[in-house]
Amino acid sequence: MENLYALRAQKATNSELTELFRMSGQPDVISFAGGLPDPAWFQEEIDDVASEILKNHRKTALQYGPVPGITFVREFIAERMTKQNMSSKTENILITSGALQGLDLVCKVFVDPGDLVLVEAPTYLGAISTIESYEAEVDSIACDEDGLKVDELEEFLKNTSQKPKFIYVIPTFQNPSGRVMSLERRKKLIDTANKYEIPIVEDHAYGELRFSGQDIPTLKGLDTEGRVIFLGTFSKILSPGIRLGWIAASEFLINKLILFKQGTDQMSSSLSQLIAYEAGKRGLIDKQIEVSKKNLRQKRDVLIKALEKYFGNSAKWVTSEGGFFTWVEIDKDIDTLQLLYKACDEYKVAYVAGPSFFVDRSGKNSLRISYSLPNIDIIEEGVKRLYQVFNQ
Amino acid sequence: MENLYALRAQKATNSELTELFRMSGQPDVISFAGGLPDPAWFQEEIDDVASEILKNHRKTALQYGPVPGITFVREFIAERMTKQNMSSKTENILITSGALQGLDLVCKVFVDPGDLVLVEAPTYLGAISTIESYEAEVDSIACDEDGLKVDELEEFLKNTSQKPKFIYVIPTFQNPSGRVMSLERRKKLIDTANKYEIPIVEDHAYGELRFSGQDIPTLKGLDTEGRVIFLGTFSKILSPGIRLGWIAASEFLINKLILFKQGTDQMSSSLSQLIAYEAGKRGLIDKQIEVSKKNLRQKRDVLIKALEKYFGNSAKWVTSEGGFFTWVEIDKDIDTLQLLYKACDEYKVAYVAGPSFFVDRSGKNSLRISYSLPNIDIIEEGVKRLYQVFNQ
Repeated sequence: MENLYALRAQKATNSELTELFRMSGQPDVISFAGGLPDPAWFQEEIDDVASEILKNHRKTALQYGPVPGITFVREFIAERMTKQNMSSKTENILITSGALQGLDLVCKVFVDPGDLVLVEAPTYLGAISTIESYEAEVDSIACDEDGLKVDELEEFLKNTSQKPKFIYVIPTFQNPSGRVMSLERRKKLIDTANKYEIPIVEDHAYGELRFSGQDIPTLKGLDTEGRVIFLGTFSKILSPGIRLGWIAASEFLINKLILFKQGTDQMSSSLSQLIAYEAGKRGLIDKQIEVSKKNLRQKRDVLIKALEKYFGNSAKWVTSEGGFFTWVEIDKDIDTLQLLYKACDEYKVAYVAGPSFFVDRSGKNSLRISYSLPNIDIIEEGVKRLYQVFNQ
Repeated sequence: MENLYALRAQKATNSELTELFRMSGQPDVISFAGGLPDPAWFQEEIDDVASEILKNHRKTALQYGPVPGITFVREFIAERMTKQNMSSKTENILITSGALQGLDLVCKVFVDPGDLVLVEAPTYLGAISTIESYEAEVDSIACDEDGLKVDELEEFLKNTSQKPKFIYVIPTFQNPSGRVMSLERRKKLIDTANKYEIPIVEDHAYGELRFSGQDIPTLKGLDTEGRVIFLGTFSKILSPGIRLGWIAASEFLINKLILFKQGTDQMSSSLSQLIAYEAGKRGLIDKQIEVSKKNLRQKRDVLIKALEKYFGNSAKWVTSEGGFFTWVEIDKDIDTLQLLYKACDEYKVAYVAGPSFFVDRSGKNSLRISYSLPNIDIIEEGVKRLYQVFNQ
């Protein structure tokens, strides 16, 4: 049947991460690879939530529901966003099966083959592969410690012959860098997007997990023209296993997205929706956020201390103020991708290599360290092994 | 932003069903419209299943899992299919968020804009809209009481200048007709597909709900060349609300589908997977199937009796042997689509009009009656109202 495959399927090849995640899952490997929440954060009280939902609302939880999501769950999300200074109504919310499905649906609405989409460099590799599956040309704009270099974006937009369909950004505790886009850059990004009439897709997956420093308004919160398409998720504040996220956008765009949601998976799990709603109402999400932040802060502290101890001046890293990730750049001409298999196999430590996050496959001397999942007691040993890998 | 929409989004318009389902949901309307399971079939024991899963396996249920599904759940599905004479291994199974997502992923692998895809006439309208969202040309082959007219398919394939990417069929208790493709036709369909090297996508959503007559092998069961891509779902045998289905196909194709599953929604709900697995192991799925079949049989009997009483010789219908649907053709030059709003508004009865199931919008004198959801006591009154609508 291979000769019948669509072009996008002929192009798609096995992700380099499949093998990595297989190797990093071996019991003796200390893994800084996957961006998973620590399951110790999951609250016991969630058991009762699920149990009571089935006992009291079985016929709703197990039944089909409306395509855009159960109305009172959408309302709950809208209220939650409004409280976070992103004024939203029920009609602005489409419930999705995770934030990545949000991006997938946005691509379905905006991207024709050959279209141009902009991302940050580096950016979330899952996003690159979703956007590329729509046969878009993906181009990237560099980031520094203040996030996206908006001047370079403006320069690009001024000179490009092809208008991008949207720019995808993760302004807060970015994946992979852990960086936060500064307020000044955020305002400038909104202005630039307004000027060139480019939609901004804001991925807020880690945004609620700030454990130090001051909150900065989201792009959605700064947006006055309906320019920002916001991707939210319960994956990092409640559970990735229930596959639940949302898109917040203008009602007009939401209505178009709903048409594609219907043809993609009809609706997201009713049971998951009720669990998220009830967990939210009972304060379990807020509680889990507090638990996660405390634990993330401790792990980050240990990680940074270990980086200082082993790498000292031979590397630079981001002291992240929230989220799951730190970005490390080794002051050396090494290839983290090439060294990865050796790292897993011989040194028993896993990470994701820099080039995986760059459309142009640059970033050879860099890597993403995810500190959310590993036990706090093995983080230092993991960093020691990383040092050995890069200084063998 | 509308000027930035992709072609597929410019083409997609609000489904005529959105308004219908809104109207049919009004409390005084007897609805034969939606294809929903009767929530009375949902077993109470499922409450304990969910509760115990969270208590004993919270860290798996709430966590990310492998893209193709949790291995022992895939194994369970493979074993279940093997028992149903469709020999399968774990590697042949990709867990999806419902059968429609299965079709969506198949389209992602096979369909380029302008490609040809064949369906039955009539066919499941959700499938038409999913396939069309990939900008395929959808053409249809007629059905009669024995299902797809395979002779016409062969004639089509002999003469077409464009080879179809696949043919999508619902051979058992078809949506919308309730018909079963005969064994002879099934064998001939496999032969024809082999001869012309066309993949067959077999949607088996209702296939396990036979309440009278003899079982017939599935296309998958008859397939010896890996020609059939099988779409399964837990929606009609356990719960649509947990959004869980699967694709069974060659390992080679499954590996390609996994790449797109990853970029679409990463994985299906871990919690849903564990619920389906545990419900299966405890015999709850088998039990629910028995309960559903008994109830469906009773409802169908009442429905057919009422059709005989009111329509007599003025209409033809399918006496379905399983599934949710009966197909009615009125012996009269009427337009069921045009009459639909009047039916809901004035006569307080809802159905889905024939043309919704035909790519060429024919079938004006026909309609789908879904008898799964309405209370058995109101079915006769519903049929009476239908008679009044079409004989006012």
